[in-house]
Amino acid sequence: MTEVIVIGCGPAGVTAGLYAARAGLKTLVLGSKKDSQMMYAKNIQNYPGFDCIAGEKLLQVFIDQAKEFGAGFEEKEVVDIQKGFVVKTADNTRYECKAVVIATGLPIPWSGIDGEKDLMGKGVHTCPSCDGPFYKDKRIAVIGNGNHAAEDAVLLSSYSDDLTILSNGKKFSFSDHMKELIEKNKIKMKDAKCESFRKDEDIEVSYKDGSDHFDGVFLACGTAGSTAFAERLGIIMDENLIVVDKNNMTNIAGVFAAGNCMSGCKQIAKNVGDGCNAGVNLIKHVKGTQAYVDYGK
Amino acid sequence: MTEVIVIGCGPAGVTAGLYAARAGLKTLVLGSKKDSQMMYAKNIQNYPGFDCIAGEKLLQVFIDQAKEFGAGFEEKEVVDIQKGFVVKTADNTRYECKAVVIATGLPIPWSGIDGEKDLMGKGVHTCPSCDGPFYKDKRIAVIGNGNHAAEDAVLLSSYSDDLTILSNGKKFSFSDHMKELIEKNKIKMKDAKCESFRKDEDIEVSYKDGSDHFDGVFLACGTAGSTAFAERLGIIMDENLIVVDKNNMTNIAGVFAAGNCMSGCKQIAKNVGDGCNAGVNLIKHVKGTQAYVDYGK
Repeated sequence: MTEVIVIGCGPAGVTAGLYAARAGLKTLVLGSKKDSQMMYAKNIQNYPGFDCIAGEKLLQVFIDQAKEFGAGFEEKEVVDIQKGFVVKTADNTRYECKAVVIATGLPIPWSGIDGEKDLMGKGVHTCPSCDGPFYKDKRIAVIGNGNHAAEDAVLLSSYSDDLTILSNGKKFSFSDHMKELIEKNKIKMKDAKCESFRKDEDIEVSYKDGSDHFDGVFLACGTAGSTAFAERLGIIMDENLIVVDKNNMTNIAGVFAAGNCMSGCKQIAKNVGDGCNAGVNLIKHVKGTQAYVDYGK
Repeated sequence: MTEVIVIGCGPAGVTAGLYAARAGLKTLVLGSKKDSQMMYAKNIQNYPGFDCIAGEKLLQVFIDQAKEFGAGFEEKEVVDIQKGFVVKTADNTRYECKAVVIATGLPIPWSGIDGEKDLMGKGVHTCPSCDGPFYKDKRIAVIGNGNHAAEDAVLLSSYSDDLTILSNGKKFSFSDHMKELIEKNKIKMKDAKCESFRKDEDIEVSYKDGSDHFDGVFLACGTAGSTAFAERLGIIMDENLIVVDKNNMTNIAGVFAAGNCMSGCKQIAKNVGDGCNAGVNLIKHVKGTQAYVDYGK
């Protein structure tokens, strides 16, 4: 059994993976380095130890070092976390584990559709398990084009049969497993760029030529990120950032967070530091002892 | 004028210095790398980026990188910080600055003298400015052999003329400036190993052959550390660790902390992360704007 799942393959996630694996824990890092903002940094001068290095190269050094200690890496997209813990990927693999590190980077951006901020919580939502029950047998739209949207639509099908995924002008892109679930649950798909949300008796979604009416709209743009996972587990957030204690642990014992999905500056060095602190403390958590002896203690 | 003073020349301090200097702030790091625990790490395998490197070598790489951006380094011992801010070193240099980073590592150890923990706050103290006023015209002992003890004794001479520094068996070692102040303030020095503190009507300090009686005893062993500085500035502590917010700032605006003197694991990577976060946020503090653009924001 995998003992530790790290979600996110940027500097925070890889460092947490390095520490966990080095302590002998069976550790798997899920995610693609291509999603890390490090990949876009051409010349990094402020990561202590390197005068000047390309982000892509430095991240690969981090990954190789973690692999050296036995950390596994799989380029899979996580779509759900359940308490216990079970981490589910878009290809329908389910990983049981004892500790989870959320290191998914910056939270999901807004969809950019006019009216979304005003209507947030008043017809526009982001959390199926929190707000889905309010839309029992109602007309529901999910905004998004990928596995995150599919997963949310499938979750919402517990509450209603009238579900539509709106692409918002992007190309639909689902894993085979998600395609099956969409079909099985008779979820409709509409390829249309949304221009605005307007609330009257229901929520009117306007397109360039026409509009549709729904009772509730759920935003699930991009890939599932920290906000989505946090909501599923009941993790306390401060606006859209995960709140952690001094051990980088969230309010859910065994769930840690590190990097840009929590507070502080958005820097490689700081994110490596977060990953390290999360790693050291999850080792203590999983082993149930003060197994990891800090220097100088 | 120096804009930023960093106290401590370990990974946290050097990284804060690197960031501040790179942002164009006149930055000075005070301290000796010899005081960093990195110097004792022979083979570091868990600092991301390096498979295996000696601590001394890695710390020198950090220092050289910070110097490259213009950070100044002086091997001076800080003995006091005053609000404003003024940082004073053992050679009586006074540095005015706009922001301070406390990165002094682990807090001062206890003296090891029997009874000190039971009597803490009840005759045995660590903060001259907090507790000195209770000993007006009384007999006061300061335990310690270096500049930290001298500085505290001088501070206490505002309250009493009856002051003795007890070496506790270590060799007295004061800077020339401190020697002058000891003489000027007629502070006595006694070279004796202390065995115990016992409270009756006063505090009895026992030696192997005999004892002395004082009204109050102040511990000032080793060099002045985070606890001493925090007490002088009124910084909120959690036990003997400095409390900081998500920006690594203490409750005193402009005073930041990073590394082992605050909470979290005692690791190079984590301390570098702290230094980075303190650095980025002090830049914003000193420049008075959101001058430092984070990646991805």
